[in-house]
Amino acid sequence: MNVIDDLLENNRGYAAAYVSHGLSARPTLRVAVVVCMDARIDVHAALGLQQGDAHVIRNAGGVVTDDVLRSLLISQRLLGTREAMLVHHTGCGLLDFTDDELADAVERDTGVRPPFPLGAIRDLDEDVQRSVRAVATCPFLPHREVVRGFVYDVATGRLREIG
Amino acid sequence: MNVIDDLLENNRGYAAAYVSHGLSARPTLRVAVVVCMDARIDVHAALGLQQGDAHVIRNAGGVVTDDVLRSLLISQRLLGTREAMLVHHTGCGLLDFTDDELADAVERDTGVRPPFPLGAIRDLDEDVQRSVRAVATCPFLPHREVVRGFVYDVATGRLREIG
Repeated sequence: MNVIDDLLENNRGYAAAYVSHGLSARPTLRVAVVVCMDARIDVHAALGLQQGDAHVIRNAGGVVTDDVLRSLLISQRLLGTREAMLVHHTGCGLLDFTDDELADAVERDTGVRPPFPLGAIRDLDEDVQRSVRAVATCPFLPHREVVRGFVYDVATGRLREIG
Repeated sequence: MNVIDDLLENNRGYAAAYVSHGLSARPTLRVAVVVCMDARIDVHAALGLQQGDAHVIRNAGGVVTDDVLRSLLISQRLLGTREAMLVHHTGCGLLDFTDDELADAVERDTGVRPPFPLGAIRDLDEDVQRSVRAVATCPFLPHREVVRGFVYDVATGRLREIG
């Protein structure tokens, strides 16, 4: 027994009351949101999303990596989304280290250095701006007109737009 | 006005009733879940997650990319998670193309070929197994004992474990 078994038990209850609405894979609101994986952020609740509304892309930091651009490409080109909303948050774990520090520690402990950048963030607002630029200038994304960046405050649940 | 403005309006309502519980960035249940970005999957609802319980990592397909390994590294090493749950789903958009087809089409339309694999999936169960192996054999992840893979059925809301 591990925690995953408890989540499976929760899922049985969810499935018992589930209504599929026959939705397709194309998000109803034609929007994709990119958010940090942080456990305190329930994206559906925080944005009022209903089943089928939006693609939800999440990673450590909500930073725009190649994998986020890959996901946005598929989201826009194959599944019809047109707007992108990027969300970092206060109290993010990525503010607490530098890439080199963490890579050094991992290499010391395991003998293996992670073969990619680790995504450490120095300044939240700056990194949101950098992320917005990374999406807005990505040459293979078909929809780059509406790309907006935000910081979510885990103390208040509120989004602040970064201009 | 775009759809994002509607989501911001929803967020104002959410924040008005928000209770932070003073949670830290360390997930209470010490588990990370990796799930496709699909709009039909509300991860918190489907797994019965409460605020603060789990890291939620999502991308196109829920496939294990370098970015997912990066996120799991930070999740486990810096924020204390010990179990990983990987979830693909029925009706996934990544079953409908091949990497070459999509890369060719993007290059034809934009002049730029995406500089990374696009993550097309041929067989759901096989790709879940591949994803579980990719996490379980990743040499720099500290916790690889409990890595379990699932397919979520968008018609029933139910998870099926892949052995």
